[in-house]
Amino acid sequence: MRFDVTILGSSSATPIFNRNPTAQALNINERLYLIDCGEGTQQQMLRFDIKASRIDYIFISHLHGDHYLGLVGLLSSLHLNGRKKPITLFGPAHLKEIIDIQFKYSETKLHFDLDFKSIDPLKSEIILDNTDITVETLILDHRIDCTGFVFRQKKRLRKINKEKTELLNVPVEYYSLLKRGVDYFTTDGKTYANSELTSDSEATKAYGYCSDTLFNDRYFDQIKNIDLLYHEATFAHNMLDRANETHHTTALQAGQIAQLNGVKKLLIGHFSARYKSLIELLDEARSVFPETELAIEGKTFVI
Amino acid sequence: MRFDVTILGSSSATPIFNRNPTAQALNINERLYLIDCGEGTQQQMLRFDIKASRIDYIFISHLHGDHYLGLVGLLSSLHLNGRKKPITLFGPAHLKEIIDIQFKYSETKLHFDLDFKSIDPLKSEIILDNTDITVETLILDHRIDCTGFVFRQKKRLRKINKEKTELLNVPVEYYSLLKRGVDYFTTDGKTYANSELTSDSEATKAYGYCSDTLFNDRYFDQIKNIDLLYHEATFAHNMLDRANETHHTTALQAGQIAQLNGVKKLLIGHFSARYKSLIELLDEARSVFPETELAIEGKTFVI
Repeated sequence: MRFDVTILGSSSATPIFNRNPTAQALNINERLYLIDCGEGTQQQMLRFDIKASRIDYIFISHLHGDHYLGLVGLLSSLHLNGRKKPITLFGPAHLKEIIDIQFKYSETKLHFDLDFKSIDPLKSEIILDNTDITVETLILDHRIDCTGFVFRQKKRLRKINKEKTELLNVPVEYYSLLKRGVDYFTTDGKTYANSELTSDSEATKAYGYCSDTLFNDRYFDQIKNIDLLYHEATFAHNMLDRANETHHTTALQAGQIAQLNGVKKLLIGHFSARYKSLIELLDEARSVFPETELAIEGKTFVI
Repeated sequence: MRFDVTILGSSSATPIFNRNPTAQALNINERLYLIDCGEGTQQQMLRFDIKASRIDYIFISHLHGDHYLGLVGLLSSLHLNGRKKPITLFGPAHLKEIIDIQFKYSETKLHFDLDFKSIDPLKSEIILDNTDITVETLILDHRIDCTGFVFRQKKRLRKINKEKTELLNVPVEYYSLLKRGVDYFTTDGKTYANSELTSDSEATKAYGYCSDTLFNDRYFDQIKNIDLLYHEATFAHNMLDRANETHHTTALQAGQIAQLNGVKKLLIGHFSARYKSLIELLDEARSVFPETELAIEGKTFVI
């Protein structure tokens, strides 16, 4: 099952040449889950050939403009391009008001259902549970309410060992039970343990998204051992005071968070406009956690 | 005096690859006047090296997203980059609400004064009169209230003919009167007509901005004989029905408007996403008005 993330924006607060505000397109089994939607996200999707029509879910972490100002434009374009399929939008309660007032004054009536689900920023919970994944919220620690997300693949059904089942003439109707782990009972009273006829499906993977936040261990339990963690790293550690003041994380801290929680791979982003080159931030995170990559616009990371 | 316009966006409604929604930066005597501010305008300014810090005035024609969705992001960035100088923003009354609600929920308190001036969409009037120009509104004809603008250079002071004034020993204190057209009276009772000692300053120029609108002669008087007219030309004329339905102009009509009103040069823009190449639109406008150019991103037109 496809499970990867394409970076559409990596800048914090103000865009700079070549770096756009935050947005990421998660492709899970050919459906798109858009995480944050900074200004220019729809243009970035055009640039990197990410089909906006495939978006089924949108998640907005918080109401700082660099994380949502592209949303109304994206929804308008989907509408104008004839979208009919509903979209589920998760975000802070007031996001609804912000969208509504803009569509009110532009006299826009969307041709598709926008199913808005307000996120409780003080509660960690599963907000989505579909056939492919669950999405769990993380209580981040920012200047305003801010939510992170863990996207976790669901355990898939067991794989049938066809050679064995054919040898035993297992009736095809029995296959769905075998996939669910049920043992095989023959009509003449014999029993075959499920493990003899099937094997475990691939391990499930998880992607964690933490932007924007102070280093704070309250969300650490939920990102333990995950396969890919995106964590903001707005500043280098020599700007720790500024990071604390603005409720952001340094690249060194992002590395420490990955290392402390045994994640497999770290992706850092949300870079301050002061860094023309990002090597300093990458080197710093790698000094504690070598498996670190930069969340660069247009790059896709398989989870 | 510098008087030119740089195109930051030329697409209508939905952006396409390489075409951004509407925005134009007018440079008048090294001060910037931003006209409309579609999503991604601040990124376009970075791309084309237009210094956002030089913006003193912003004009928003109407509340369709492709004309203003970049505004909150631009204002935020100016704020974060330490701007202190005030900005005067002209726009539809409800724009204030849209901005206020977004800054409220992001807990942003701008460090500069945003002097909002609501435009009356049903009245044509002079909304700005400073040392360099006047700005007059045009009542356009769109699906929602929409305003166009004419930027008209002010008549500059007369030029003194130094050879003559030195020959006559005109006291330096008299120069400011001469520049204003006053005749010269000597202490011994002689009179020299002002025209003998000065010459007229350069002719004043004007730039007209008409987006979005149906072909409607109610704004024609105000664009008569102007030097450069930007007019929307969303569709080719074979889509006249669609243009009428959506309250837009065709390229042929834009050419007719320029020709009917004796403008010196026409700039067409606000192109529908359906046109990958713009040659058809350009040829069509030129068939009635040869002095037509395409309002292409990054191009600067001297007025």
